[in-house]
Amino acid sequence: MSVIKVAILGFGTVGEGVYRTIQSHSDELSAVLGKKVEVAAILIKNKDRKRNIHDEVFVTTNFEEILQLPQLDVVVEAIVDKEPAFTYLKNVIQRGCHVITANKEMFAHHGKELLELAEKNSVSVGFEATVAGGIPVIQTLRQLLKINRVQQIEGILNGTSNFILTEMREKKQSFEESLLQAQENGYAEANPTNDVEGFDAFYKTMILSQIAFGVEPEWDEVEREGITSITSELMETAGKIGLKFKHIASLINEGNQVKASVKPVLVGSEHPFYHVEGVENAVAVHSDLVGRITLQGPGAGMFPTASAVIEDLVYVCQSSSSKKLTVKTSSVLPNQHKKIKYWLVQGLIPHNCPPFISLEEEIGEGIFVVKASKDDLNHLEKQQTAIRYFSIEGEFQSKIVSKESVTVN
Amino acid sequence: MSVIKVAILGFGTVGEGVYRTIQSHSDELSAVLGKKVEVAAILIKNKDRKRNIHDEVFVTTNFEEILQLPQLDVVVEAIVDKEPAFTYLKNVIQRGCHVITANKEMFAHHGKELLELAEKNSVSVGFEATVAGGIPVIQTLRQLLKINRVQQIEGILNGTSNFILTEMREKKQSFEESLLQAQENGYAEANPTNDVEGFDAFYKTMILSQIAFGVEPEWDEVEREGITSITSELMETAGKIGLKFKHIASLINEGNQVKASVKPVLVGSEHPFYHVEGVENAVAVHSDLVGRITLQGPGAGMFPTASAVIEDLVYVCQSSSSKKLTVKTSSVLPNQHKKIKYWLVQGLIPHNCPPFISLEEEIGEGIFVVKASKDDLNHLEKQQTAIRYFSIEGEFQSKIVSKESVTVN
Repeated sequence: MSVIKVAILGFGTVGEGVYRTIQSHSDELSAVLGKKVEVAAILIKNKDRKRNIHDEVFVTTNFEEILQLPQLDVVVEAIVDKEPAFTYLKNVIQRGCHVITANKEMFAHHGKELLELAEKNSVSVGFEATVAGGIPVIQTLRQLLKINRVQQIEGILNGTSNFILTEMREKKQSFEESLLQAQENGYAEANPTNDVEGFDAFYKTMILSQIAFGVEPEWDEVEREGITSITSELMETAGKIGLKFKHIASLINEGNQVKASVKPVLVGSEHPFYHVEGVENAVAVHSDLVGRITLQGPGAGMFPTASAVIEDLVYVCQSSSSKKLTVKTSSVLPNQHKKIKYWLVQGLIPHNCPPFISLEEEIGEGIFVVKASKDDLNHLEKQQTAIRYFSIEGEFQSKIVSKESVTVN
Repeated sequence: MSVIKVAILGFGTVGEGVYRTIQSHSDELSAVLGKKVEVAAILIKNKDRKRNIHDEVFVTTNFEEILQLPQLDVVVEAIVDKEPAFTYLKNVIQRGCHVITANKEMFAHHGKELLELAEKNSVSVGFEATVAGGIPVIQTLRQLLKINRVQQIEGILNGTSNFILTEMREKKQSFEESLLQAQENGYAEANPTNDVEGFDAFYKTMILSQIAFGVEPEWDEVEREGITSITSELMETAGKIGLKFKHIASLINEGNQVKASVKPVLVGSEHPFYHVEGVENAVAVHSDLVGRITLQGPGAGMFPTASAVIEDLVYVCQSSSSKKLTVKTSSVLPNQHKKIKYWLVQGLIPHNCPPFISLEEEIGEGIFVVKASKDDLNHLEKQQTAIRYFSIEGEFQSKIVSKESVTVN
């Protein structure tokens, strides 16, 4: 039986998960591919650290040595940061290897370039692990929804943020306390900026945009907001009318361009993400034929992420040539900024409110549910600069039994 | 540009949806396949009925005329009942055409035979539409989870039953009233037996078993129960402790054999199906690497089902040869019948209860939450023949604030 030789760049959680899975699932890999999959080399940073790697695997801190291996078929990249990951992958593609990456920041910045380079060199790029961990979102969009016109995608793409929001709500604790908990559980880094300020979700959203629509919005036009401004008090008030805060990435196809946002919004119990709690991820794809499909599962973790990489490994080895991004003709939704919908507005001064903002209900002191368009609220914000507003997804129905029952803590 | 000629057998909801989608999405089909897709012929039952079909399409009541068309590449079968659908498909496969079916009863009975025949004739069989309508469950298991060892699959596979259960609970109305509502909405047939007695979900479960595990359980060993025995009173009592009835198909790999059941069970809010309401379908796949992935979406309807057929059309046209069912080595779960878990038991006489049944809580008159194994309950049933029991999925935590608040209506 011939052999597929794999190199793994990086031996952190993802790299180690991939290595261990190639050992534990070698029978399945051989059965599906008709070839034995073998880890030929692993690139590490620190040579002194003790690692559980078989002796026959070539372990090195020098990438050049991996590039010069006599046989190399697939390179799995599981490093962080854009560089040197991008340079490494360009090199291996030019050598004629398939590549699989779990690096969302690098891929959001350089994915297009890598895919073009891969096409020129007749190899494939797998990047399922860059978005939503083990949930096969990329392949579902790419392989299973080829004919459906995707209109909109929503996602809970950052498990850390979702975990923090869940903790804050369930335990009525502050953002800081919940972040600490996330760090203790290994869900958040010592520097949590990428997660809690929405950068991680932003990169994933841009990758999804390329896959679903063939284009990306201008990065600086994307509304990106993290979860740091949400207080447990605001959360509790929203909860009184049956709403939960969720950090949601949204992509909408508006004809000539894709509109994107990555921010906390409020959802009611009819929304598919209302019940997505803890570190889970979820993606809802709205398309013209099938309607709304929701995929939910683990967004991170050693084996879920390794699963995405390994399933990609099968995919790239079975594809004889590079799969290019399909630019799809998609259905168009009307301009979302003019759409009248429900919002939760904090710090609103009601007697000073313009007539195009319809005040539906005061649910806490200075906290109102209003009916207005995004444009209307932008207009109001110029007059009342202290307000903050959050979109309420779907239909709003007051869950308050009597006004008296509402108090603001 | 060369042409792919398609014949559609049957022009009910599914057949018409496929026909209309081939027209409306012809650009996407050409772009993906590099060939024009054309409906060459449609098989109908009643020649006198007025239908919205273009003049150039050959419409006939005689299948033989379709079989003798000079060019025929793909046949979409959207009829009900096992026969003559099975015979038709055998004929077209032998002619060398790919086939796509939406007929779960036929496919559950004869799928294996069709797939073997297709392999001999080097054509493909698409059957995504047989399970969970527009949700790409079959292809996710087949294409995206090739290396994961699937341990367990659960599904809400019958939208009609789920709709009836949702209506009964939300509107506190009887099974009969809710069934009538389902019939008025077009979700249930005049003869609802297939849906409400669990046959439809059973067929789908057997198809899933083949895909996930390569084998099926003995059909007559599968516990199959519909929803007709559930009363709205029982539902309300369960609701008091935070549980909902869902009609769930379950497949568990127990080593040498696959255990299946299709029956109403009770789930709490942490279960992925607790929030799946109305005609929606959902499938949760538990596998060793990725953990639990849940797919949710429309289980029926003209365009969701057409979507599944059309995406299959792309799949079979892109596959040069037949895809055979993969027999996978799967992880094994321990014997479920010995596992101690929570159950809701109706009609229990507590003072006569054997010591291995732990009575946790009386939640209504003669309705108890107990902790026991399936074997224990089978044993109890021999002594107290009037009991009925339902599995409580996941962990049980009493949601009753005080005992006094529980009354049985």
